Amino acid sequence: MAALARVIGTLVLALLLVALLGLLVVAARVALYEQVEPAGSLERKRLALERMADGVDPEAARPNVVLIFFDDLGYGDLGSFGSRALATPRIDSLAAEGIALDHFYAAAPLCTPSRAGLLTGRWPARLDLGHVYFPTGSNADRILRALGRDVRLPADEVLLPEALRLAGYATGMVGKWHLGDHSPSLPTELGFESYFGMLYSNDMVPAPLHRGTEEVDAHPVDQTTLVARYDEEAIEWLESHAGETPFFLYYAHNFPHIPLYASAEQAGKSLAGPYGDVMADLDRSVGRILDTLERLAEAGDTLVIVTSDNGPWFQGSRGAVRGRKNMIFEGGQRVPFIARWPGRIPRGVRSDAVTGGVDLFPTLLRLAGVPLPADRTIDGEDLMAALEGRAFERREPIFGYSGTTLLTARTNRFKAHRRHGVFGGYGETWPFGPMLPKGPWLFDLPRDPDESYDVGARHPDELQALLARMDAQDESLARNPRGWID
Amino acid sequence: MAALARVIGTLVLALLLVALLGLLVVAARVALYEQVEPAGSLERKRLALERMADGVDPEAARPNVVLIFFDDLGYGDLGSFGSRALATPRIDSLAAEGIALDHFYAAAPLCTPSRAGLLTGRWPARLDLGHVYFPTGSNADRILRALGRDVRLPADEVLLPEALRLAGYATGMVGKWHLGDHSPSLPTELGFESYFGMLYSNDMVPAPLHRGTEEVDAHPVDQTTLVARYDEEAIEWLESHAGETPFFLYYAHNFPHIPLYASAEQAGKSLAGPYGDVMADLDRSVGRILDTLERLAEAGDTLVIVTSDNGPWFQGSRGAVRGRKNMIFEGGQRVPFIARWPGRIPRGVRSDAVTGGVDLFPTLLRLAGVPLPADRTIDGEDLMAALEGRAFERREPIFGYSGTTLLTARTNRFKAHRRHGVFGGYGETWPFGPMLPKGPWLFDLPRDPDESYDVGARHPDELQALLARMDAQDESLARNPRGWID
Repeated sequence: MAALARVIGTLVLALLLVALLGLLVVAARVALYEQVEPAGSLERKRLALERMADGVDPEAARPNVVLIFFDDLGYGDLGSFGSRALATPRIDSLAAEGIALDHFYAAAPLCTPSRAGLLTGRWPARLDLGHVYFPTGSNADRILRALGRDVRLPADEVLLPEALRLAGYATGMVGKWHLGDHSPSLPTELGFESYFGMLYSNDMVPAPLHRGTEEVDAHPVDQTTLVARYDEEAIEWLESHAGETPFFLYYAHNFPHIPLYASAEQAGKSLAGPYGDVMADLDRSVGRILDTLERLAEAGDTLVIVTSDNGPWFQGSRGAVRGRKNMIFEGGQRVPFIARWPGRIPRGVRSDAVTGGVDLFPTLLRLAGVPLPADRTIDGEDLMAALEGRAFERREPIFGYSGTTLLTARTNRFKAHRRHGVFGGYGETWPFGPMLPKGPWLFDLPRDPDESYDVGARHPDELQALLARMDAQDESLARNPRGWID
Repeated sequence: MAALARVIGTLVLALLLVALLGLLVVAARVALYEQVEPAGSLERKRLALERMADGVDPEAARPNVVLIFFDDLGYGDLGSFGSRALATPRIDSLAAEGIALDHFYAAAPLCTPSRAGLLTGRWPARLDLGHVYFPTGSNADRILRALGRDVRLPADEVLLPEALRLAGYATGMVGKWHLGDHSPSLPTELGFESYFGMLYSNDMVPAPLHRGTEEVDAHPVDQTTLVARYDEEAIEWLESHAGETPFFLYYAHNFPHIPLYASAEQAGKSLAGPYGDVMADLDRSVGRILDTLERLAEAGDTLVIVTSDNGPWFQGSRGAVRGRKNMIFEGGQRVPFIARWPGRIPRGVRSDAVTGGVDLFPTLLRLAGVPLPADRTIDGEDLMAALEGRAFERREPIFGYSGTTLLTARTNRFKAHRRHGVFGGYGETWPFGPMLPKGPWLFDLPRDPDESYDVGARHPDELQALLARMDAQDESLARNPRGWID
């Protein structure tokens, strides 16, 4: 017995030693972490941009573009998208003067991947990106580093503002970035000539304000004046760039992401509480931008877009669709989308064209006369036809990823869900949901926007086709994750 | 070092021994498990029933009652409750001939507690009941026993059919019981003179069919004929009980709980897939019951009720409200409710009276002329005024429990949520939800049925009042969990 005890004790001591060494290794990994860039990343990017610059079409329309991007705004949070609890008159007027897309999907149901998809035109899974970035030095960031996950965009990605600059656009950004907080991943290092805003979500710590690459206002920032300060910056930027060259302003609000801080004027006024107060601030902000464009006589030449990065989180409304932020049900990814461009986009049209956040990159490049980067797959498709109210059908489905796991595919009529795994993306009926894998499912969205009734048994061919399309997508990414074309 | 190893080894061996003993204790607990009944349980119940019998009012209306209870039918699953994907013409005709309650809450967002609340008129937390019962001998049942949890209703509870029999009602049940599968907890031991059905959910194993206390059809039952067999039993029972004495038929369907099995006639016919097929079967079943009442000339004297035990699970629609089965958002507990009683209930009325599953016990007892048991708190309130389309306001809020943890309280206008804990009932934005406790919240339900916008900051007094009411409820249950009045 004593001998047995000694053997077991020795084993335990050995295990403790191994565990200790493991902890040291993890600590070293965190301390020494370097995001691994593929060999020749910067050279690849330089070449891609060079070839794009060579192909710029001088005859392109080159409208100004103002892209107003909300954070966690839900599909049901705008009057023009059915809200009866919130008043958003200025945003609704934009819809009345332009087009509203009722089936527009953010590139992902989560902040960082959604923004990466928006600015690269590629599914974030291509960048191995299903997570959010956290402030460098935070515990969450340490965990990402220990796991060897990226903490900024790969250096070879070509971003929307970099491409637009090739066509002579002035590029400016105000607001939330969330695509890396250190060189070479800051907005002014990735195509924006100027930047003012918060690099992270407004609930992350620390989240100071930056101008360019400099911190100008330490954490914690007074968020009750954040919208007003952003407005001031955006308006100033517009004033100084109105005129000859086309401009691209990316105005990415931190709200209505929590915590909710309304302005002093609006606080307590909305019948819908703090969320309503904040939405009133945001609506007024959109109005200010529109008024500024009018005052500067740029409204007629400007494509103004309003949309969101993903569905609503704890508060906010998903409208008539199922699910919320971080879910692969509609409410995670389906967001409001409004676009106005007088003369080119018809007034007061609603479209049920199935479109997505990844589509803006190729659409805006086409308008700017910039060819797509030829060395990589661009997953987005030019949706200008949809914006003009014409027939539009994507060649490929809109995909829904939970993290980097592909789970859904949406075509015009149907949305297929792969079998949900024990912890794979279901999310909605926790704690029972994850224990009971379900699916595959096929939803007939025009009849059943709420994803309530599986019709896979009625339409087996359609279900199989979409499941096969998802398999092919996985295989393609397994073979060539980054989608390089060489 | 060797000495240290020996000490550690001895400790490990001792721990292993303790763990082994622990496993033996658990196994013994499971094997020897006896649900602990409070002393004098049966005597308490006998006395309560005796006093109730003494107080029966011979002049009461004593209508027949047919209570049709669906399993997991969602708030948005009926045409009369806004569904555009499903056709439920017979159920809708019942609504057109009677009243629909738009704000009716099942007693709990889960099968077993919901049914316990329905049949006792008491919040299931009074019975320490926030879980579901599993078939005796199943692993889930073993776990419940090892944890010392109840596996049947406490023996001192007075059930609706027992009370109605005091007033001369014939009582029959067809369908799903889910309140215990062994003596003395079978339907025919708790007030129903006859029973035919499945004691459990249709996804539990084993789930044979019982007639009375006898198993008559072994697991697995052919579920494609289940609705037809139930109909046959129900119709036969009605035929043999039409006439002089009032009758109470509790017809509790196993569907649309999954797995979905449609009849051969209906399978594949609905545009909404198998769920739609099953709903067509259920609608036809309701039609058959209504036709039978007509044929037997009992329709005029019969209060027919159609409702559900909780919200929709994986499929099924929650309609315009937030959340699904097992959540404390509206969709977990808010279910359709339709009642028809010609002459007494007005035709084609919709009511926004806030009412609940616990209210049926006192309502039906009043109609039957049976006094409430005097020795215990009945949480339900007589909602006959609401059924008659008159003004109705509950004295107490409708409570929402996650398991046995009280989390929400609903009055006519507001619903308050206590702060959601890390694992306490949130359920909807998993995996991020549970990590981020949120609240307390106050929702203005008439303006915001989707529970999207917290107005606690706008209405602090109303929020505090509801939070205090929940504290008082907790204190009351801590002091006197069963609510005995002695």
